[in-house]
Amino acid sequence: MNYKMIFHILGSILKAEACLMLPSALVAAVYGESCLGAFAAAILFALAAGVLLSWKRPADSVIFAREGFIVVGLAWVVMSLVGALPFYLSGEIPSFCDSFFETVSGFTTTGASILTEVEHLPRGLLFWRSFTHWIGGMGVLVFVLTILPLAGERSMHLLRAEVPGPSVGKLVPKMRSTAIILYSIYLALTVLEVILLVAGGMPLFDSLVNSFATAGTGGFSIRNASIAAYGSAYADGVIGVFMLLFGVNFNLYYFLLIGNFSAVWRSEELRCYLGIVGLSVAAITLNTLSSYGRLSTAFRYAFFQVSSIITTTGFATADFDKWPALSRCILAALMVLGACGGSTGGGIKVSRLVIAVKSTLAECRRMLHPRSVEIVKMDGKAVSESTVAGVHIFLAAYCFVLAGSVLLVALDNFDFTTTITSVLACLGNIGPGLGAVGPMGNFSGFSVFSKLILSADMLLGRLEIFPMIMLFFPSVWRKR
Amino acid sequence: MNYKMIFHILGSILKAEACLMLPSALVAAVYGESCLGAFAAAILFALAAGVLLSWKRPADSVIFAREGFIVVGLAWVVMSLVGALPFYLSGEIPSFCDSFFETVSGFTTTGASILTEVEHLPRGLLFWRSFTHWIGGMGVLVFVLTILPLAGERSMHLLRAEVPGPSVGKLVPKMRSTAIILYSIYLALTVLEVILLVAGGMPLFDSLVNSFATAGTGGFSIRNASIAAYGSAYADGVIGVFMLLFGVNFNLYYFLLIGNFSAVWRSEELRCYLGIVGLSVAAITLNTLSSYGRLSTAFRYAFFQVSSIITTTGFATADFDKWPALSRCILAALMVLGACGGSTGGGIKVSRLVIAVKSTLAECRRMLHPRSVEIVKMDGKAVSESTVAGVHIFLAAYCFVLAGSVLLVALDNFDFTTTITSVLACLGNIGPGLGAVGPMGNFSGFSVFSKLILSADMLLGRLEIFPMIMLFFPSVWRKR
Repeated sequence: MNYKMIFHILGSILKAEACLMLPSALVAAVYGESCLGAFAAAILFALAAGVLLSWKRPADSVIFAREGFIVVGLAWVVMSLVGALPFYLSGEIPSFCDSFFETVSGFTTTGASILTEVEHLPRGLLFWRSFTHWIGGMGVLVFVLTILPLAGERSMHLLRAEVPGPSVGKLVPKMRSTAIILYSIYLALTVLEVILLVAGGMPLFDSLVNSFATAGTGGFSIRNASIAAYGSAYADGVIGVFMLLFGVNFNLYYFLLIGNFSAVWRSEELRCYLGIVGLSVAAITLNTLSSYGRLSTAFRYAFFQVSSIITTTGFATADFDKWPALSRCILAALMVLGACGGSTGGGIKVSRLVIAVKSTLAECRRMLHPRSVEIVKMDGKAVSESTVAGVHIFLAAYCFVLAGSVLLVALDNFDFTTTITSVLACLGNIGPGLGAVGPMGNFSGFSVFSKLILSADMLLGRLEIFPMIMLFFPSVWRKR
Repeated sequence: MNYKMIFHILGSILKAEACLMLPSALVAAVYGESCLGAFAAAILFALAAGVLLSWKRPADSVIFAREGFIVVGLAWVVMSLVGALPFYLSGEIPSFCDSFFETVSGFTTTGASILTEVEHLPRGLLFWRSFTHWIGGMGVLVFVLTILPLAGERSMHLLRAEVPGPSVGKLVPKMRSTAIILYSIYLALTVLEVILLVAGGMPLFDSLVNSFATAGTGGFSIRNASIAAYGSAYADGVIGVFMLLFGVNFNLYYFLLIGNFSAVWRSEELRCYLGIVGLSVAAITLNTLSSYGRLSTAFRYAFFQVSSIITTTGFATADFDKWPALSRCILAALMVLGACGGSTGGGIKVSRLVIAVKSTLAECRRMLHPRSVEIVKMDGKAVSESTVAGVHIFLAAYCFVLAGSVLLVALDNFDFTTTITSVLACLGNIGPGLGAVGPMGNFSGFSVFSKLILSADMLLGRLEIFPMIMLFFPSVWRKR
């Protein structure tokens, strides 16, 4: 284990985090809010710790897969601990556990909140809360690596561990250039959303924070009633469409940019994603038609909620906890599923579903015709056996984490629906669940123990389980 | 596809089913019940159809894996259709859909019931209802093959498709001898339970039907309050222990008989199974202690319910739907898990859990040390990669069936808990779930459509999914 290099990278991340807090401090200053002091203290602390840890670059800068996983796991925990300081120091969230939960929820783009009255928060903190979504959406380490090419091409290990989905390809030969392309697309889409929202009459501040939360598929809102508070079909539409866009594999946007339309057209994950969205919207529209009365109204709410849940954003324009059982079960299934690999969304990802279904059908054919050779193909290319095995092992690990967390959270003795969907919503990085954690509820009622379990679930979900699990492998910490 | 041979085997099964209805008809005759006529008609129908279908043995008696799966899938559907006749013809269950549901629930050893007043049923039908558990526990086809060595050693295909668990080994070189050994153990344990129950003062009829339901890990009771109706700690204890015994891989009993104690001791599945039972009983005892007051009372109910649910029997001595969230969630997790492979229990089986956990940990080690070779071992032997892949694909298929069924059953608009646990309880062959289908509830409230879906789930669960799914593969039905 190259501890020196790990400390060096963690230090760089803390320095980056200090810089990332500056815009929020600026907002606090502009609005003359007292939380400016808390930001100043947090920034100074992050800067000091960062400079200390990354004082000099270690002679041995080589990192292997092991260090890659560990640094990703640790970085997210450290960033969340430091990112919680503004909430805690300002006194706006008096418990550090709650501040940590809220920050983990931000960085992991979950959007689960322990705040019962979000509108009371000063604007600086509201900005920081939503900005963590934007930072977390594309990954923190990749961001740092774009600025500081720390470990050269070996940082592919970091990208693999941090970017969601079964496999990460490089778009261009250089890892750094790949990251810059992806971040540029991310930034461009975010700016476009802000412009469209402002054009529709939403205040600039609201447009910014809502766009951050959309881009990161986070779902923190600055209004108690979430997006429903704006009561605007235009805003619903823009945000609904942009959530879907941010749930698409970003590689496809790059292909679009360079004119490779056939790669986009061939993408089975995209077609399956849009197909599931279409079917879910249709089913929920019909299922809720009798309560909404009008087809267009039912469609509006069905589309927004489906888009919000499948992309694991978690914005709400309707109290879907009151919907009929079919609609609630569809949303619960979408919570597990999540968006496309290589997007900012969480969940198990559509590409994994496609590979799992195809390999299951291949197994059926193999059972029927024991001597035939069955290959799983995706986008016209054969999927390697190790990728298929990796997908299935990920699914099993997801189920284990889900079951274990449900049992631990059950100690709080909430009802069955709340217990299960609170874990689903955190592990899938969605935010709201059903029951007491429904779109109009929140996570404030849980015990400190459950909040820590749910925080761990958010991190496990965002980093796709393995980097977090490996922190608990004793062999990882041995010196090499 | 060798259709002639398939018809021939189905015919033999119907003839066997006609014979298996005789004891129930005898009971009806002894008690002078009017359902005797229904039995006579059902027996005659099964006999006539059986004789017609199996009139002459086809010249080409070769069956391949394809035929093996199909014949297993079809046999269970046909047996349930014919087995439903006594309920339907006697008029005791006026709807054929309900009669079919009840019979599927019997043969698949689920124990989910649509009857609200089971004590009103005549004894002949009660006997048949519980006897279907006993028949279904060890598998129908294996039974037929023990009597009629139809397809020689090729019938291993049938055994593989019908016996639960990731892999079936032959105990002795001849398939038929293996089956005879397993059935003898099954019979001996059942007789032992009857003797112990009668010795404890339970009436002979009750002892018989309760032993049938225990042996098959079925759970149909002839009392509305299930085993709680006897109010006897002795009966609770005997049935609780025997449920656990029938949840153990039967191969281990054979090893015990031939004095191979080390094979039993080495069994990781057994140790894991008993470990999970121990932990669950301890957790539930502590969790329910405050409501039961006394440790011994809490332990008594915890042990019986855990034993009943993990073995997927479904007997109840307490209304566990009223237990605290942790206890309910533990039971829900045990519903998914189920008993050991090669037992009469359902669920995904402990051996699959062990293989899934071990292969997940192996994957973690592989990620950390990409050049190392990681082998999954069980009972000291390496598990083949194809077995590991098979386990993961089974788990994925289980999740797909679960999710699909929940969405379809959700159309009935029951609450979230009822919807999910009704599917869990049927797919896992348990019987009772939580909410409206809790131990003191039943399945009568579901629509015809949901009852058919849940019937399909019971068959999917009992045959471990693939034989049932393959009935829907068009390529299966092509002539070879």
